Amino acid sequence: MGWQKHYLDKLSRFFQIRNLLLRQALAECLGTLILVMFGCGSVAQLVLSGGSHGMFLTVNFAFGFAATLGILVCGQISGGHLNPAVTFALCLLGRERWRKFPMYFLFQTIGAFFGAAIIFGMYYDALWDHPASFNVTGPDATAGIFATYPGNHLTLVNGFFDQIIGTAALIVCILAIVDPHNNPIPQGLEAFTVGFVVLVIGLSMGFNSGYAVNPARDLGPRLFTAIAGWGSEVFTVRQGWFLVPVFAPFLGTFIGVMIYQLMVGFHMEGEVRDRKESTEQETVRLTNVTSKDNSREAVKERNEC
Amino acid sequence: MGWQKHYLDKLSRFFQIRNLLLRQALAECLGTLILVMFGCGSVAQLVLSGGSHGMFLTVNFAFGFAATLGILVCGQISGGHLNPAVTFALCLLGRERWRKFPMYFLFQTIGAFFGAAIIFGMYYDALWDHPASFNVTGPDATAGIFATYPGNHLTLVNGFFDQIIGTAALIVCILAIVDPHNNPIPQGLEAFTVGFVVLVIGLSMGFNSGYAVNPARDLGPRLFTAIAGWGSEVFTVRQGWFLVPVFAPFLGTFIGVMIYQLMVGFHMEGEVRDRKESTEQETVRLTNVTSKDNSREAVKERNEC
Amino acid sequence: MGWQKHYLDKLSRFFQIRNLLLRQALAECLGTLILVMFGCGSVAQLVLSGGSHGMFLTVNFAFGFAATLGILVCGQISGGHLNPAVTFALCLLGRERWRKFPMYFLFQTIGAFFGAAIIFGMYYDALWDHPASFNVTGPDATAGIFATYPGNHLTLVNGFFDQIIGTAALIVCILAIVDPHNNPIPQGLEAFTVGFVVLVIGLSMGFNSGYAVNPARDLGPRLFTAIAGWGSEVFTVRQGWFLVPVFAPFLGTFIGVMIYQLMVGFHMEGEVRDRKESTEQETVRLTNVTSKDNSREAVKERNEC
Amino acid sequence: MGWQKHYLDKLSRFFQIRNLLLRQALAECLGTLILVMFGCGSVAQLVLSGGSHGMFLTVNFAFGFAATLGILVCGQISGGHLNPAVTFALCLLGRERWRKFPMYFLFQTIGAFFGAAIIFGMYYDALWDHPASFNVTGPDATAGIFATYPGNHLTLVNGFFDQIIGTAALIVCILAIVDPHNNPIPQGLEAFTVGFVVLVIGLSMGFNSGYAVNPARDLGPRLFTAIAGWGSEVFTVRQGWFLVPVFAPFLGTFIGVMIYQLMVGFHMEGEVRDRKESTEQETVRLTNVTSKDNSREAVKERNEC
Repeated sequence: MGWQKHYLDKLSRFFQIRNLLLRQALAECLGTLILVMFGCGSVAQLVLSGGSHGMFLTVNFAFGFAATLGILVCGQISGGHLNPAVTFALCLLGRERWRKFPMYFLFQTIGAFFGAAIIFGMYYDALWDHPASFNVTGPDATAGIFATYPGNHLTLVNGFFDQIIGTAALIVCILAIVDPHNNPIPQGLEAFTVGFVVLVIGLSMGFNSGYAVNPARDLGPRLFTAIAGWGSEVFTVRQGWFLVPVFAPFLGTFIGVMIYQLMVGFHMEGEVRDRKESTEQETVRLTNVTSKDNSREAVKERNEC
Repeated sequence: MGWQKHYLDKLSRFFQIRNLLLRQALAECLGTLILVMFGCGSVAQLVLSGGSHGMFLTVNFAFGFAATLGILVCGQISGGHLNPAVTFALCLLGRERWRKFPMYFLFQTIGAFFGAAIIFGMYYDALWDHPASFNVTGPDATAGIFATYPGNHLTLVNGFFDQIIGTAALIVCILAIVDPHNNPIPQGLEAFTVGFVVLVIGLSMGFNSGYAVNPARDLGPRLFTAIAGWGSEVFTVRQGWFLVPVFAPFLGTFIGVMIYQLMVGFHMEGEVRDRKESTEQETVRLTNVTSKDNSREAVKERNEC
Repeated sequence: MGWQKHYLDKLSRFFQIRNLLLRQALAECLGTLILVMFGCGSVAQLVLSGGSHGMFLTVNFAFGFAATLGILVCGQISGGHLNPAVTFALCLLGRERWRKFPMYFLFQTIGAFFGAAIIFGMYYDALWDHPASFNVTGPDATAGIFATYPGNHLTLVNGFFDQIIGTAALIVCILAIVDPHNNPIPQGLEAFTVGFVVLVIGLSMGFNSGYAVNPARDLGPRLFTAIAGWGSEVFTVRQGWFLVPVFAPFLGTFIGVMIYQLMVGFHMEGEVRDRKESTEQETVRLTNVTSKDNSREAVKERNEC
Repeated sequence: MGWQKHYLDKLSRFFQIRNLLLRQALAECLGTLILVMFGCGSVAQLVLSGGSHGMFLTVNFAFGFAATLGILVCGQISGGHLNPAVTFALCLLGRERWRKFPMYFLFQTIGAFFGAAIIFGMYYDALWDHPASFNVTGPDATAGIFATYPGNHLTLVNGFFDQIIGTAALIVCILAIVDPHNNPIPQGLEAFTVGFVVLVIGLSMGFNSGYAVNPARDLGPRLFTAIAGWGSEVFTVRQGWFLVPVFAPFLGTFIGVMIYQLMVGFHMEGEVRDRKESTEQETVRLTNVTSKDNSREAVKERNEC
């Protein structure tokens, strides 16, 4: 074992990256790869098996739990966003620096690209065996395995609205989960709860266009399909639909942040601020230890109201 | 970042609401909005996709986890009732003040109204594309996306009984989860457990009329459908069915509270009271420190029996 | 509020039961009622809706999470067995007194009886609306909603074996979960884990005869159906099948206890005993404080092996 | 009770095994037995019921939660690998001794063998009742209940690749879960999280050949089927397919370990090492207590970046 430990230590020192931002971006890349690999894998299983090995519910479960696993893999290093919209929300609220945003967006998209590539390799035989191997449109189209496409009933305007609502719902729930003043769940269960959020969005908002609600998850695999054989049609179909899941989520993020802050966030922050200020004033006035207990009791009374 | 933080702080101070009851009511409003948005969204997905993107199980999952998420969003502020029946139960037991009840009921109904409105907007195209766009009755009726309607086999009496049982079951489980003397689950998992309760009720009590068991969740969306195009038929259909999910749950709540208290609650409270009183008496008699340990041991022995 | 609190306190004192065993039996009764109400409710939903509102998976979920909820409601008071086989296993291992066994068995059966009665009331209209309302056999038989009946392919011998295996699997998993020396899960999650055990047993051992693995859960509802209109055929059908889920589980419990103890339990107990004895010997030999740390380190080293 | 306790204690002393490795191997055996019993049981339920009592999703759930339960039963003793690929990964990283590997592999295979045997006994009648009782190939083949066989679309090369990807995905997720420097989940939830990993792999990577990703889980039951009546065809079918799930997972494990270490693991280890070394240096330079706090603050600042 001694020789092995020595060798592992040497490997570790050789490959160690010391730049924090690069390390975080790499972790985001792996997390998003896992999200897309499992998520798109389940769509592939559904489409290519013709429904015998999956249904829409399995896709919802897969994306939900894939989000959980992706966050678990990279969460301690990069925060586990897996989604430029989430990074954007945290930047908007001043909890992440803006310079992280482009870096994360890039590496999340790269991760999604390779996640799609792995699924392509895994189901290569099944794809060629499929009657509509590389079709972008039509009843058996396989392009939908990787990127999202709108249902036939959907107009571009409603599709834009759909992505805004979906992302806003995602962001409201995520903000509640990670709000430092509103800690509703035990430490360490954030990833599972976010998985449930993604699951529920899939269960209730997936019919229109497949709930991308994530620019990187949609753009990365779409780029891959353009290269891998589906061609440029993946960008041109339905009057440039591909722009909707890239841009609408950011607007949805803004709306989600506003709704959460106006209805819950600002008041909680304010209460914490009020409490702190009143404690400080009392401390000044009384300059003794007991004041703290008093103020705590006052707060308690107010809470019990 | 400095400029951004300053601006966010200013926004926070501007919008902060200091009235506690209003803040709590707003939080309940957002929580119920999330419950109804995800819950009714899943019904919409099932009905409008004709079963390709959902089934009854997905509706059960969506309502269950939507309840979890709704509670997570507002639980720290308002308690996360999302349901006037739950507020009623806690008022009955003296754990919430009665003046909260009308306020919560109102804002829960408003939240449910807007939750339905969001789903209406999201699936607007799909709704118009549906063969029975705005039908209240018939095989493809879409009114059931938002509010509950009884199955054809159901009489009004059995429907009333159905809502009473469903709500009583909900309340018994919720009382066990939040009972301060019977703390069966780790702190912070209440929301998840309540989600499981709602899921199980849907799995086993959803066939008769769709398990509303929540006056606000049913009344808010029904009001919305009356306005949005389904017309007053949503109130008049089946001899005024809409009154059942508004009134039966409160009767069910009363029965549920009684059952839980008679079979579990009163005895636990009593034990705690007995223990406290015996400790006090012993303290008086002995007036020394060791008595506490003795009484604790006595309690332990009794528990080990 | 003062008046209300006073009144509640009076009620609480009036109804309080001080006999511990009776209180525990009552709690078991409510827990088993919840298990059977939700479990059989989901079978009713599946059978009476003709598959539109359920499938075998929903029954598995319902029984699993119903077990969780039943345990949560009564676990702090009675241990949350809900199953005479579990009580039997704990008595066999000397962790519960034998006099609890008949009391628990009786009240669990009573709870299951009333759980079935509630579902009967809830789906009364649907039952009459069903083509085979009160049939015990045949393709649309409804007796299977409440009690279990063997599939047509099953002989009595294989059925007996089926119940033994199912109960043994249940008991092995439950013993691992509640083993005081093998504490694999965080405090408070036992109920959820037992729910998963019941779920998995349903997913993999439910085809032969519907995985009763619980004498009370099967006998109580069967008694109810005999009274409620299905008649004595529920006992006579298939050469007295009803005896199998009453007696086979106890044999399965014995086998499960043996397997767990031989492969895991005895060795863990033994290790704890060895450690204790060696610590005692060292304490005697050295009679100083440091010996404890030494023995702890020794144990640690052994564990790290 | 006294007599019973005495007798249990005697039994415990008689059967206690003191050899740690044997005890661990026995625990692994029981854990893998549980995994295969529940997992293959769900496939049996799906195949033998012709789809009425199961679908591919139920198989995914069963294997996922069966992994959870198997780990819970043996995790405290043996680590709960249940899979030679996991043992191999931990040996590669120097966290387990190499001599454990053959012992665990053997006992995991034995456990899987007996798990399959139990399911064979449980569904013996149903198997004989099935139209294609002991077929290895063809539309109703039953050999797939126990071991995995490739889909008709799959070539041997793609199948090999499929098993490599599946195992690599499993190992990346498991390494993240058990990484001592990247502790993303609360103590005690590892088993549940691994269950989710197995579930997700089944949801997205199960169409090609049934996601063995575990040499013992596949080889043990295959040996059983060869003996129990399916004959040597289980080894010869599809040009010796049975070798793929035995060897490909180890290659996949190596790749998974590399990916996780290069993208996450090495950098975390390195950071911990850097921090330790810098603390040591500072301690040497300053030789006072405050230096520790300083370095901690420095670390904190770096983390907050």
